[in-house]
Amino acid sequence: MRLRPFFSGGGLDRADHLRTDPAAIGRLCADSGALELVWENGAPAIDAMGRLCWQPVSGSPPLLLGLNDHHPRLCALPEDNGPIDARTHIQLLTLLAAEDSPTFAAALSLAQWHGRHRFCSNCGQSTEPNRCGWSRACTGCGAEHYPRVDPVVIMIAEHDGRLLLGRQPSYPPGRFSALAGFVEPGESLEAAVARELQEEAGIAVGEVRYLTSQPWPFPSSLMVGAWASAQSDSLTIDTNELDDARWFSRAEVVQALSGDPDAPFLPPPAAAIARTLLEAWVDGLM
Amino acid sequence: MRLRPFFSGGGLDRADHLRTDPAAIGRLCADSGALELVWENGAPAIDAMGRLCWQPVSGSPPLLLGLNDHHPRLCALPEDNGPIDARTHIQLLTLLAAEDSPTFAAALSLAQWHGRHRFCSNCGQSTEPNRCGWSRACTGCGAEHYPRVDPVVIMIAEHDGRLLLGRQPSYPPGRFSALAGFVEPGESLEAAVARELQEEAGIAVGEVRYLTSQPWPFPSSLMVGAWASAQSDSLTIDTNELDDARWFSRAEVVQALSGDPDAPFLPPPAAAIARTLLEAWVDGLM
Repeated sequence: MRLRPFFSGGGLDRADHLRTDPAAIGRLCADSGALELVWENGAPAIDAMGRLCWQPVSGSPPLLLGLNDHHPRLCALPEDNGPIDARTHIQLLTLLAAEDSPTFAAALSLAQWHGRHRFCSNCGQSTEPNRCGWSRACTGCGAEHYPRVDPVVIMIAEHDGRLLLGRQPSYPPGRFSALAGFVEPGESLEAAVARELQEEAGIAVGEVRYLTSQPWPFPSSLMVGAWASAQSDSLTIDTNELDDARWFSRAEVVQALSGDPDAPFLPPPAAAIARTLLEAWVDGLM
Repeated sequence: MRLRPFFSGGGLDRADHLRTDPAAIGRLCADSGALELVWENGAPAIDAMGRLCWQPVSGSPPLLLGLNDHHPRLCALPEDNGPIDARTHIQLLTLLAAEDSPTFAAALSLAQWHGRHRFCSNCGQSTEPNRCGWSRACTGCGAEHYPRVDPVVIMIAEHDGRLLLGRQPSYPPGRFSALAGFVEPGESLEAAVARELQEEAGIAVGEVRYLTSQPWPFPSSLMVGAWASAQSDSLTIDTNELDDARWFSRAEVVQALSGDPDAPFLPPPAAAIARTLLEAWVDGLM
């Protein structure tokens, strides 16, 4: 069975071949079916049904998100492109329609990347959008810079039928979730899973199995969900990273996922891939 | 069975906890068992046995690669940090010992990243190494920048018992390999596999299965290997990306992997994850 985390569908036709056509943006803006994304408080605007809001094209938005039924979907760079505050973040994830979530993720990640990359990391001169917004070119040394996609491993470790979950200091009271960390240069996904479990919980890992993946546009993560076999259940918790980490039985995870207020922990929210990992484990899909 | 592509082992103890200790580098450099990586022509130097070359620490190298048996392994930033030429690249991959390959990959990716990120992408001011070389901090706006790890999907598509492989213009004569492309913002790994096969070969995809992963430090890719079920064998090749793409039978792939000079194609080299994917397919490990 294929797991389908939020944000992980196909989205628009990205129409890669148009990006290298220098005249494309002008032509696309003139298309009578072209639409432009509406921004609100630094994020794509959403209507009461959770759908993205679009408007007729005004001016010449620099980003081509893709084609919908052969008509262009364009996007300006929002003036406010700082990080989204936690309240907006939670509201967005509760409301957003799953079918629009991949386009939301692409627009938000791209816009925030443009905002943080107005200068060339190679020479310090200014950069300009290029390839219909899918890269930036330096006006000084000519270097081309591509949007970041930062892989993160997020994993459930199992030992003797129980699952290891942890609490970050930023979590709401009672929540436990999968442990996670950024993949570093020179690491495979499997090596990153083993290192993070060792660092954060003192757990040595045997087998590692990939489960599923999800873009997470706050601002540019690619979450890679995995299951790992722990070689013991003795924990050494890195208190710089985690408030707590504990082993939970299948019955406890089932109870938490059911929304029972007496459950021993509050599970991750529906939009998080960690929730998908817990559901997959309960369903025996490892 | 766990697949083990080149570059994908565990490597050094990365000793993450030392990176946030501002005095750590000074203390580590004074450790009598400390060693410093030797650079040669912009890459980590390798001896006749394919092992990395180390020397006593001179000065205060800014990068802590990790610990080996509790002793620090440090690394200076090479003066020549441009891209490695193709000949050096091939020689390195033929000679390099698998056990040293993760450390080689981390050092090369990190050093090249430092070389291309001497300025802040947010404000254009200069940046300085931070966290024992695992980030750079801006001297102007204070932004902290982390090394890039760029996820790439690389996949073998199967239809009716045959495998789709393609030829990039840069390949040596006769070589065919797995199709590949960078994961974009707002994409899951599965969506990126489907998009790349559609773009490069005109193939619609059903199921996608993760196989294994590999860091590829030329300069900073994380290769994510997958198998995909193709919904037809009718190809529309993107000639901007590929010279050719063809379907090969299991017997043909077996013949190519055996090194038979009469095989219908030259397979990817041993260090490439594409080779691991072909071997896994022949062995029925999908």
